[in-house]
Amino acid sequence: MSFQRTNIATMAGYVPGEQVNSADVIKLNTNENPYPPSPAVAAALNGIDSAILRRYPSPTAVSFREAAARCHGISVDNIVPTNGGDELLRLVLTTFAAPGETVAVTRPTYSLYRVLAEIQANPLHEIALEDTWDLPEDFVRQLSDAGAKMCILVNPHAPTGKLLPVATLTEIAANFDGLLLVDEAYVDFVDPAREHDAVPLAVERDNVLLLRTLSKGYSLAGLRFGYGIGSAELIHPILYKTRDSYNTDYIAQQLAAAAIQSRDYAENTWEKVRQAREALANALTQLGFGVTPSQANFVLATLPAGHSAEQLYQQLKSENILVRFFDQERLRDKLRISVGTPAENATLLAALTRKFT
Amino acid sequence: MSFQRTNIATMAGYVPGEQVNSADVIKLNTNENPYPPSPAVAAALNGIDSAILRRYPSPTAVSFREAAARCHGISVDNIVPTNGGDELLRLVLTTFAAPGETVAVTRPTYSLYRVLAEIQANPLHEIALEDTWDLPEDFVRQLSDAGAKMCILVNPHAPTGKLLPVATLTEIAANFDGLLLVDEAYVDFVDPAREHDAVPLAVERDNVLLLRTLSKGYSLAGLRFGYGIGSAELIHPILYKTRDSYNTDYIAQQLAAAAIQSRDYAENTWEKVRQAREALANALTQLGFGVTPSQANFVLATLPAGHSAEQLYQQLKSENILVRFFDQERLRDKLRISVGTPAENATLLAALTRKFT
Repeated sequence: MSFQRTNIATMAGYVPGEQVNSADVIKLNTNENPYPPSPAVAAALNGIDSAILRRYPSPTAVSFREAAARCHGISVDNIVPTNGGDELLRLVLTTFAAPGETVAVTRPTYSLYRVLAEIQANPLHEIALEDTWDLPEDFVRQLSDAGAKMCILVNPHAPTGKLLPVATLTEIAANFDGLLLVDEAYVDFVDPAREHDAVPLAVERDNVLLLRTLSKGYSLAGLRFGYGIGSAELIHPILYKTRDSYNTDYIAQQLAAAAIQSRDYAENTWEKVRQAREALANALTQLGFGVTPSQANFVLATLPAGHSAEQLYQQLKSENILVRFFDQERLRDKLRISVGTPAENATLLAALTRKFT
Repeated sequence: MSFQRTNIATMAGYVPGEQVNSADVIKLNTNENPYPPSPAVAAALNGIDSAILRRYPSPTAVSFREAAARCHGISVDNIVPTNGGDELLRLVLTTFAAPGETVAVTRPTYSLYRVLAEIQANPLHEIALEDTWDLPEDFVRQLSDAGAKMCILVNPHAPTGKLLPVATLTEIAANFDGLLLVDEAYVDFVDPAREHDAVPLAVERDNVLLLRTLSKGYSLAGLRFGYGIGSAELIHPILYKTRDSYNTDYIAQQLAAAAIQSRDYAENTWEKVRQAREALANALTQLGFGVTPSQANFVLATLPAGHSAEQLYQQLKSENILVRFFDQERLRDKLRISVGTPAENATLLAALTRKFT
């Protein structure tokens, strides 16, 4: 007999992007940072004596939270550490959305949200983005009409890279009587000229939570470290009730603290990625692709008319270049391309130039 | 307003044992292994180049699962890796117990089970152990009468250290129409003469799952690594649906594989702990304590009549010796003492000798 819950038995799991470890592969499919983590991370790693691992770690990752609080100018009570950003997403649903309560997202969006809602038996309400990938004007009314208990927005948006300004988030939070979770997985790559900072909004309001991750901005996808930012009232039940008591390990806590304390190094990688992003977008445009202006570390590129994105994805893969193809509505004529190093981007562009000129 | 789900708002979180990192403290309160992890773990740690951390890890911890499969003589399809054993407990509830379905446990047992059931809105049905800490004879009938969908047994039992033989587990599994989860967090410390091995039972039956952890047996509490063992049919939905896609990190995967591949080293620590456990139990008995025979890396000691366990816990703490006091029914006259090194145990016994002779 099957012991699975009905909702688990009928759902499909999340399918991560292909992870390969061959040095021959140019991997532009899972939005990893093309640069290694900070030398301070390497030093922290070298400084760890394995003997200490016999002991439990700090249950609440105190040293990391202190470092993150200093970084953002907020209190440790505003921060909950998680085993990657994905864990925060799960915990926010577990803590604030009872089974049966509706979770609203945009269409398209990060596909994990649907999976998490299905696991926890939350109906998912999708609100279609405009052709420009903007939110519809009546977005908050649609949230209310759907009876949403929670809304999850990824910002900058995935897979388009479009950024909602803080003013828009503020307006949504003020008019929505549910919880707004803003997934800022890619926020580190936003142009500093935008002066984008949603942290004060999250700390001041009682219905906004932010997700941060060290996976992309700090080149630590392999470490699994993220955190949530919000008012102490929202953070407390995640930190002390629903989170697994020791959800982050000793080594990860030390390396994550070192990374965030050497933010200058990471900022330099963000700037290099931004420059490469603009160069890549321009080159793709010249080849006839349509490119959505992106504030993330990837670009969404629409193929020139008459070409198949799926076929191009397969062709590039056969040349050891991995990008991401989404077999879904409105995305089937597009590829999402992570921004690599200038050399990696040049190899990709050379391959595309052979096909499109 | 509070956004917490009603069951979350009303529950109390799990309270971990005190974690202190002072070298002056003799820490016998959270069942950590008193010996450091294997030199192979240190070598694996030294061999990690932080540059690789910019990449996502293997989503399913392939190299660890291959090592664990070889260790147990089973298939990788019988193994799901988790972020500590606690995550497996949560995932088994998430995957197999719908909100409202009853989870049965013994009383007393590991207190986290109640917390996890409360988070997921599962009624918890407690079945009291006999005075001898044995299961009542009609245990399976009590499971059925309670309509339990799942039963969680910790074996060796916490906090008593009592071991249920595989024959008993087999009989429960054969007669219970729900899922039996056996938490084997302490199984590495069972006397080899008992020839205790529940792995074949878990792999052959479709309703038995085992929890294993590297926290105690492999001296890696700080690393957060555990795994589940069961039939492929039970493991599959945890591995591919309910688990966070990247739930274990790159470093932890490497160190965990190194630990399990150098099992001989760990076995040596188990034997030292067993010898120290017998010596500690004998010495406590001579001081007038009642000690339950333990197959784990701790002993449950009942104070001599007329003495307060809570007071003794406080006195020992003031002398920098931490043990565990449980303020609950049937345990208030007892202390749970983790087995330390012979030197640590001697310091504890010297402190007790001053008070009880």
